[in-house]
Amino acid sequence: MTSHKLSVQVAINSWRLVVERANKIFSSLTADELLKEVAPGRNRLIYLWGHLTAIHDAMFPILGLGERLHPELDAIFVSSPDKTGAQFPPAGELRKHWDEVNAKLLSQFASLSADEWLQRHYAMSEEDYAKDPIRNRLAVLLSRTNHMSYHLGQITLAVK
Amino acid sequence: MTSHKLSVQVAINSWRLVVERANKIFSSLTADELLKEVAPGRNRLIYLWGHLTAIHDAMFPILGLGERLHPELDAIFVSSPDKTGAQFPPAGELRKHWDEVNAKLLSQFASLSADEWLQRHYAMSEEDYAKDPIRNRLAVLLSRTNHMSYHLGQITLAVK
Repeated sequence: MTSHKLSVQVAINSWRLVVERANKIFSSLTADELLKEVAPGRNRLIYLWGHLTAIHDAMFPILGLGERLHPELDAIFVSSPDKTGAQFPPAGELRKHWDEVNAKLLSQFASLSADEWLQRHYAMSEEDYAKDPIRNRLAVLLSRTNHMSYHLGQITLAVK
Repeated sequence: MTSHKLSVQVAINSWRLVVERANKIFSSLTADELLKEVAPGRNRLIYLWGHLTAIHDAMFPILGLGERLHPELDAIFVSSPDKTGAQFPPAGELRKHWDEVNAKLLSQFASLSADEWLQRHYAMSEEDYAKDPIRNRLAVLLSRTNHMSYHLGQITLAVK
């Protein structure tokens, strides 16, 4: 394995570890527990689960990996904050979306070459990328891994 | 810049962005606010600040970058949970440690070559590294970036 390929592997592995940590928590939650807030007046666990699913789903077009699987989640879990009265999908359905999105992402990640990871992501123009080549697919992967860790830290507060 | 060097830059930049986010929050906190809990009965902000400082300080020996600057922080902020009656350093001193540790880390990060980032970290043996070359310095950097994001998600709950 080349050095560059190895460094991409390290980044994908870091993503995978955090997804597994999240899976472990979400898979143990009852319907009642999913309605708990992470702190008084803050987001409920079910909202954060949907939020993470929507943000991960949005990675497909940003990384140039095809269409989203569940664009309908954005209106409920990204554009709107929690507790606006929006109708959430049932937990079983959300779980299916979450598993499906993460499984497909991981298999698509493996299909990119190390050099493709350093190409621009699709939320920026060719021009901006030329000025700042650090804003590539790999940067998106690390940013979304941090985003998941951020909310996982909150989720843990309601669970332990 | 080689591809491999660029991927290391992306990882260091991700670390830097999260440190900056943390700096922005910590620099705005009053002494009273530092005593707030992230959720009822959970860690106080000052504890998490000290905890992050101690964990970052421990990266020097793990990454083979020399001695720790403040090993004395471990007893208060890593081995012990919050609210055990331990005497915390004053906020001004903690701020100094935090800035000093992060500034030195960032300058040391820049001194490592891309290949040195893929060498084993010092919390594991040569033998284990031979079996699993993914457990290298870069993996430690990503893991600590996630750790910081995780607690930042909690800290935000007490701040906003």
